[in-house]
Amino acid sequence: MPKYSLGIDFGTLSGRAVLVDVENGREVAASVYEYSNAVIDDRLPETNEKLPPDWALQDPADYLRVLEKTVPAVLKEAKVSPEDVIGIGIDFTACTMLPIDKSGQPLAFDPKWRSNPHAWVKLWKHHAAQPEANRINEVAREMGEPWLDRYGGKISSEWFFAKALQIVNEAPEVYDAADKLIEAADWVILQMTGKEARNACTAGYKAIWSKRDGYPSKEYLKALHPKIENIVDEKMSRDIYPIGAKAGELTPEMAARMGLRPGIAVAVANVDAHVAVPAATVTEPGKMVMIMGTSTCHMVLGREPKIVEGMCGYVEDGIIPGYFGFEAGQSCVGDHFAWFVENCVPASYMDEAKSKGISVHELLTEKASVLKPGESGLIALDWWNGNRSVLVDVDLTGVMVGMTLATKPEEMYRALIEATAFGTNIIIDAFQSSGVEVNELYAAGGLPDRNPMLMQIYADVTSREIKITASSQSCALGSAMFGAVAAGSAAGGYDTIFDAAKKMARVKDVTYKPIPKNHEIYKKLFAEYKLLHDYFGRGTNDIMKRLKAMREEVS
Amino acid sequence: MPKYSLGIDFGTLSGRAVLVDVENGREVAASVYEYSNAVIDDRLPETNEKLPPDWALQDPADYLRVLEKTVPAVLKEAKVSPEDVIGIGIDFTACTMLPIDKSGQPLAFDPKWRSNPHAWVKLWKHHAAQPEANRINEVAREMGEPWLDRYGGKISSEWFFAKALQIVNEAPEVYDAADKLIEAADWVILQMTGKEARNACTAGYKAIWSKRDGYPSKEYLKALHPKIENIVDEKMSRDIYPIGAKAGELTPEMAARMGLRPGIAVAVANVDAHVAVPAATVTEPGKMVMIMGTSTCHMVLGREPKIVEGMCGYVEDGIIPGYFGFEAGQSCVGDHFAWFVENCVPASYMDEAKSKGISVHELLTEKASVLKPGESGLIALDWWNGNRSVLVDVDLTGVMVGMTLATKPEEMYRALIEATAFGTNIIIDAFQSSGVEVNELYAAGGLPDRNPMLMQIYADVTSREIKITASSQSCALGSAMFGAVAAGSAAGGYDTIFDAAKKMARVKDVTYKPIPKNHEIYKKLFAEYKLLHDYFGRGTNDIMKRLKAMREEVS
Repeated sequence: MPKYSLGIDFGTLSGRAVLVDVENGREVAASVYEYSNAVIDDRLPETNEKLPPDWALQDPADYLRVLEKTVPAVLKEAKVSPEDVIGIGIDFTACTMLPIDKSGQPLAFDPKWRSNPHAWVKLWKHHAAQPEANRINEVAREMGEPWLDRYGGKISSEWFFAKALQIVNEAPEVYDAADKLIEAADWVILQMTGKEARNACTAGYKAIWSKRDGYPSKEYLKALHPKIENIVDEKMSRDIYPIGAKAGELTPEMAARMGLRPGIAVAVANVDAHVAVPAATVTEPGKMVMIMGTSTCHMVLGREPKIVEGMCGYVEDGIIPGYFGFEAGQSCVGDHFAWFVENCVPASYMDEAKSKGISVHELLTEKASVLKPGESGLIALDWWNGNRSVLVDVDLTGVMVGMTLATKPEEMYRALIEATAFGTNIIIDAFQSSGVEVNELYAAGGLPDRNPMLMQIYADVTSREIKITASSQSCALGSAMFGAVAAGSAAGGYDTIFDAAKKMARVKDVTYKPIPKNHEIYKKLFAEYKLLHDYFGRGTNDIMKRLKAMREEVS
Repeated sequence: MPKYSLGIDFGTLSGRAVLVDVENGREVAASVYEYSNAVIDDRLPETNEKLPPDWALQDPADYLRVLEKTVPAVLKEAKVSPEDVIGIGIDFTACTMLPIDKSGQPLAFDPKWRSNPHAWVKLWKHHAAQPEANRINEVAREMGEPWLDRYGGKISSEWFFAKALQIVNEAPEVYDAADKLIEAADWVILQMTGKEARNACTAGYKAIWSKRDGYPSKEYLKALHPKIENIVDEKMSRDIYPIGAKAGELTPEMAARMGLRPGIAVAVANVDAHVAVPAATVTEPGKMVMIMGTSTCHMVLGREPKIVEGMCGYVEDGIIPGYFGFEAGQSCVGDHFAWFVENCVPASYMDEAKSKGISVHELLTEKASVLKPGESGLIALDWWNGNRSVLVDVDLTGVMVGMTLATKPEEMYRALIEATAFGTNIIIDAFQSSGVEVNELYAAGGLPDRNPMLMQIYADVTSREIKITASSQSCALGSAMFGAVAAGSAAGGYDTIFDAAKKMARVKDVTYKPIPKNHEIYKKLFAEYKLLHDYFGRGTNDIMKRLKAMREEVS
């Protein structure tokens, strides 16, 4: 009988379970549950408590409903017996964190705290802790904290300590009442296994932990706020599990709720983007995986710690055990094209797309595909949502140069796509020049399947072959792979993620190879991009910041 | 009985006659004739001879049809007797030139030459003489020609000598057959009066003539091309008539064709933009007249010759007798907004405009009007069609900076409008810093009436009050004013354009006054514009030229 592993991917709006054949990675069934409370950014459910701007919360009950609804659904669809499911792995958005009590229950479930927004899950895109992030960075710079370099010189407001410090500042009573502050990923593992097994990936990328140096020092934390001097020992855990380890076994209670048998191996949780790396067949250095959607995450493995300008962070054992996992990011990729289609495409194009029965994206791509590199005379800086890597500057904004009265929408659309490819090239250059090799590219996420022109442009710009993950659900597949590793070979799974990747992960046969003639032109265009990038991004002309400040002043 | 003067404005696609009451400038009737051969840029009429790219010709017969059709029409409409029409003035696009024979007939009318494109009228926007313009500039720089500075350092391919030299280079037989090469404006005067009376305005602005120094030297012309050493004496005229003078009187033959009485005073011809200056009440220094349409012409009078960076030229007696007339230009104003509406406005806006029963321009203006200066966070360089003044560089292209995912179409639209206002401010600064005073602004043309928001932005950016011409047909009115001056006070007209302007020209009661609070913000934004202007426009980063070169290379 074939054996199966379950991968469960907790996204921003829904959770998805995929049942995977351990032997060959075949995805036999999938089921999605849309969170009933989705992203809570206006009012709290039930109590109707109004939220301030920039807040983004979630309801932990939604995560449990994912387990209860999607798992039975995939078993039923695939007609697979619970007996043949050997492991479970999950991945999650991050840092997505919540306060829980001694029994592991979210404070949000307690009627006493339910009307306090700080008792709920703070979703990754909760951006209200910017003042806290600023203070974290300021104090770290002042005290010369050695870990700051690991994160490209800046800790994000999205990360763990900024969110925790916001609770301390705005709701100290919630902080006091919490037994733990925990990543939602680890909380779901705690629910399934009854054991807390904090994962190295979120601890490392989001909570300033490293295998060699642990967390920031008490002195630093005290300087940040006296109340959190002992936050690690009081509200967190120093017991960090490497990626690829087994977290525990499914409890009888949760097995009953999920329609599984008790005792199934449960893997240590993962971050959604990072778990896609082995699902893209990548378990060794030199290969960059790009998860391309509204934004792009870039991940690459290395043998040694390296300081790379503007990366999001590097974590030992954070992606694949035994390696340093490096992460970089572009804040706006698919979002650019969506913005363009929404705001800049004339009615005549809408009509043409409709009459051809294709989407506006497809029409623009069709028209842009016949353009040669350099033919539009346009170049853009892809900073509509700031710049994450390598400049780490949210105050940067977009630029386009070269418009004439003959400029057409498809030319601007293509220029935006090229700009994101140049942005990726800047990141590759940063890695390479810091000694982290990037020889091949692997693309996952929603964009690569939808837009072959875009992938060809990336190949031409970066002069690197690009492989595309075969699965359209790389995150869930990656989680299922870790589930199979948690089960181990004795149970019909694998002993290492390396073994699992060999059998369960695949890329498509068709790859995108750079066209030398195009690369020659893009090399010149990239030099122009770099010139503008440094002029606007490195302080020669801070016009973007001044315009932004002016905008805030007059609004 | 009231007396009337006729103003006839020869535009790019049509000619318009306006009958004006000499006493008070009241426009009593107007008539338009659309040229039957319009702009000839694909094939010659009849012979169907194919034209090369960048050519733009016209049929001189169309100009005569304007005279024959519109003049009787306005007399009829106004029920005015030919006896009461005392003068005629005309204005024309320029440089719009043609070869004629000894009898004054266009070579294009001669079957022998009719199939040769060089026999036809070269319209102002005939752009095929760029190689000739390049040579004119190169030789002038080499020989240190003193007149080059009068034209902002560069002679345009649109001007007389470039067009003449193209005939010499490509059709020497046409050059040899021509008795004269003449401005179309002066040719129409020749047709009406039987006398050639070359006007100082086109001679000065388009044919490198000046009252003090005449034409370029024979040495220079010989260096340009041996065949044109004596072009001035052989094919042109040194007998230049100042603006405001009488050219002659209407011949009996033409009087019959136009339905007028013979002997009516005919004024020296004018250029369309320049004739709008007195029609805007401006007959003295310190006041800049902006003719705002698809592009903008800026005209200002001065008491002395001054070298101003990037101006189109200055001519003594070229606009108003006794003054130096300075001209500058922006190559793309209304064209920007038309490009934006055509290429960048989403279907939802089209639908909204339709449901409100307004144009897309009106909708965008409505939405952009509620924005405060600086609120969009955007800034643009208005170079979609290159830059005329002050950089004189056709290879410059557009820039926009500051876009975010929240940027809306109306914000980009407003940024483009602001960019053209900043462009005007650069021109004003250039005049002021060269000692040509610009204290007040006067606006004429199509844009000022259509867009009050735009006018307020110009007032706020320039910190100057803007008056708007009362007439929507400033050019024809100005021509009628010169017609009345040609007639003289004895015939019921005026002895000077100053007298005519006092009685016949008016501005509207409503003016646009700068709002100090807005100007304070625009002062900061203008500093940003200037920084980008100099960075991209003065050689620090020649990216626009490189992108354009690349575009041509790959296309």
